[in-house]
Amino acid sequence: MKNLLIAQSGGPTVAINATLAGIMTGACVSGSIDKIYGAVNGIQGVLEERFINLNELILDTRCVELLCQTPAAALGSCRFKLKNPDEDSSQYEKIVEVLMAHNIGYFIYIGGNDSMDTVDKLSKYLVSHNIDDIKVVGAPKTIDNDLDQTDHCPGFGSAAKYIATTFSELERDCSVYNIPAVTIVEVMGRNAGWLTAASALARLNDERGPSLIYLCEIPFSIDRFIEDVKEELKKHPDVIVAISEGIKDENGRYISEVNQSGATDVFGHSYLAGAAKVLEQAVRERIGCKVRSIEMNLMQRCAAHVASETDIQESKLLGMHAFQCAMEGMTGVMAAVVRVSNDPYEIVFRRVRVKDVANKEKTVPLDWITEDGHDVTEEMMTYLKPLIQGEVNPTYKNGIPEHIVIFKNEI
Amino acid sequence: MKNLLIAQSGGPTVAINATLAGIMTGACVSGSIDKIYGAVNGIQGVLEERFINLNELILDTRCVELLCQTPAAALGSCRFKLKNPDEDSSQYEKIVEVLMAHNIGYFIYIGGNDSMDTVDKLSKYLVSHNIDDIKVVGAPKTIDNDLDQTDHCPGFGSAAKYIATTFSELERDCSVYNIPAVTIVEVMGRNAGWLTAASALARLNDERGPSLIYLCEIPFSIDRFIEDVKEELKKHPDVIVAISEGIKDENGRYISEVNQSGATDVFGHSYLAGAAKVLEQAVRERIGCKVRSIEMNLMQRCAAHVASETDIQESKLLGMHAFQCAMEGMTGVMAAVVRVSNDPYEIVFRRVRVKDVANKEKTVPLDWITEDGHDVTEEMMTYLKPLIQGEVNPTYKNGIPEHIVIFKNEI
Repeated sequence: MKNLLIAQSGGPTVAINATLAGIMTGACVSGSIDKIYGAVNGIQGVLEERFINLNELILDTRCVELLCQTPAAALGSCRFKLKNPDEDSSQYEKIVEVLMAHNIGYFIYIGGNDSMDTVDKLSKYLVSHNIDDIKVVGAPKTIDNDLDQTDHCPGFGSAAKYIATTFSELERDCSVYNIPAVTIVEVMGRNAGWLTAASALARLNDERGPSLIYLCEIPFSIDRFIEDVKEELKKHPDVIVAISEGIKDENGRYISEVNQSGATDVFGHSYLAGAAKVLEQAVRERIGCKVRSIEMNLMQRCAAHVASETDIQESKLLGMHAFQCAMEGMTGVMAAVVRVSNDPYEIVFRRVRVKDVANKEKTVPLDWITEDGHDVTEEMMTYLKPLIQGEVNPTYKNGIPEHIVIFKNEI
Repeated sequence: MKNLLIAQSGGPTVAINATLAGIMTGACVSGSIDKIYGAVNGIQGVLEERFINLNELILDTRCVELLCQTPAAALGSCRFKLKNPDEDSSQYEKIVEVLMAHNIGYFIYIGGNDSMDTVDKLSKYLVSHNIDDIKVVGAPKTIDNDLDQTDHCPGFGSAAKYIATTFSELERDCSVYNIPAVTIVEVMGRNAGWLTAASALARLNDERGPSLIYLCEIPFSIDRFIEDVKEELKKHPDVIVAISEGIKDENGRYISEVNQSGATDVFGHSYLAGAAKVLEQAVRERIGCKVRSIEMNLMQRCAAHVASETDIQESKLLGMHAFQCAMEGMTGVMAAVVRVSNDPYEIVFRRVRVKDVANKEKTVPLDWITEDGHDVTEEMMTYLKPLIQGEVNPTYKNGIPEHIVIFKNEI
């Protein structure tokens, strides 16, 4: 029997460990896998032969449960791009050597579009070198939801649920005073506005939600923004604005860069504030009312305690599907989600060619953004709503959520 | 029968509505109250006679339940200090006129130390004018936990639970890469470090927790901070630092001010970054490793979805106790908590004189901070731990927590 190797890559999400649990579960129930290994720190851990035996974990149902409620990558992660094998094949030779030494028949890599590039290159290298007893399959993950060929990405639904929940709570917080106040909230997304769009979900229970939503797909104008805010302030004193961190001006320059070029502290060092901070300053100067900015920061990708049950379940099943693909002898494919219907929400799992995913970015369709450029359409709401349904209700111990720690970084 | 008036004041917390629910419940079961009114926007709403009838709400158990899981002040809030009555008594005359017009026999004000100043002044005014059929009682709240005469403050336990949970999740997130990286997290607290101390609770389940914790009670030195961080980086690559927003240098100047005086953008406008941002810049320049800063911002005071059950239960009971005090004919008192034991955790409710609370700040005892100045002691852990126990498990609707909205700001 062959062994299975799993690794995780790219930025953390709260669902990436559920996919790991799904792959392990699939391997366990298949009866066709001897050892299940995890490589620590992604493909780097493969190159450096840093493996963990995961067999003991999968036989303990409590561990699997904890894995599904633990945020970030339990096996560690990396940001590492393999070289072009035509120019330098040494990394590939090393990987093949390590995989063969451990009798690996299946390698499943969980990650985003950079990681799918690794799956693509490695599977092609193996095929072109007639090594057909090692199958390489990708499992998607990214909070950014920017992977092509899949309806949505594991990790996105939970981040969207955190964002919707937090906007709804911020709205309560910001509504207590009756003096004009603007709150600008910066959401992750350099090139794709999916997460920022999720702020609109705060309206699902008849609350106002953000008054203005600016995605990075539409060129941003500070002048127009100031006019928009002034209009909203005429309607109610508490104005909440959602912006993508990656909003850019009409020349494609980040708002966070444009308006502080030359900004320096007393030591002559430049400041690098986020887009929300820049807009906060603009409101203070040009409107003069109370204003604050909030960065959702890492919390939006690691708040496992408020994960979407739909997301976690799908992420686990997608991991099982990825393993299934490998068992069926496929290589160079990624497990993906196809949406069958919105209401009732129904999806099916499919495999897609990883080369159609690698290095691509799926941004928000422009016709899902309203014509005035500062909101999302009903189509977007219909798309997003099913992804945040259900709660995971994690177990708590000593008042904080229980996590599983598989390895610790030491020096 | 007399009527009851309730109002909320100061910064929002996730427990202030549970106290409101407790007062309403106490009044309802007493059988001695005719109408229950809420004043909108605190004492300002009293002055402007903006009242809401709450009787309908309290008879609907679903409303009371929703109130206990809705963050911020459902009646709105204000930041408003009454004038010294010896200099100008017009505000007091107006308040008495409004209270009498509505046959108010009991006025309960939920708030922090500024609000207790209002309770103090108003109760004294009434006594000195022989108006003894209006009793004024305070109910405490503040995430800062800085009120004197009470073991802890409603709202603090939930904020502490959010902070402990988030630090625990951030630790998972920050541990995935094996390159040196420093994450500096800024927690609320200008003068009292209680909330920052709560970051240590992330260690309760054998996780590392923040490597360094700096409270605002101890003078902060950037040089020493840099040395501390360098020491930690020798032990493990992922270093998380918790700081109070109010850390100050040995001259009492905020770190967030000192190190950016003169910092301006291209328009000559000054930047106002938080303390964490200033330290992020310092690490980048003087250590040169990967570094990021995170502000917990408003989320720490409004994340009701992860509230502490202990906090919410106590806040409700404290509201009932406050009503009880008023019914017993007391005035100028505040309902408070006395801790009987830590393990098992046991408290009793007492009333204290509001003049002993008003305008005072209870900071962290210096002997609860370790000698090296960058951590908290076991005494602090023992004090904090019971306050974050239990989960509220709020109801969700459409994938986001359900809230109750009593009034909306309009223009």
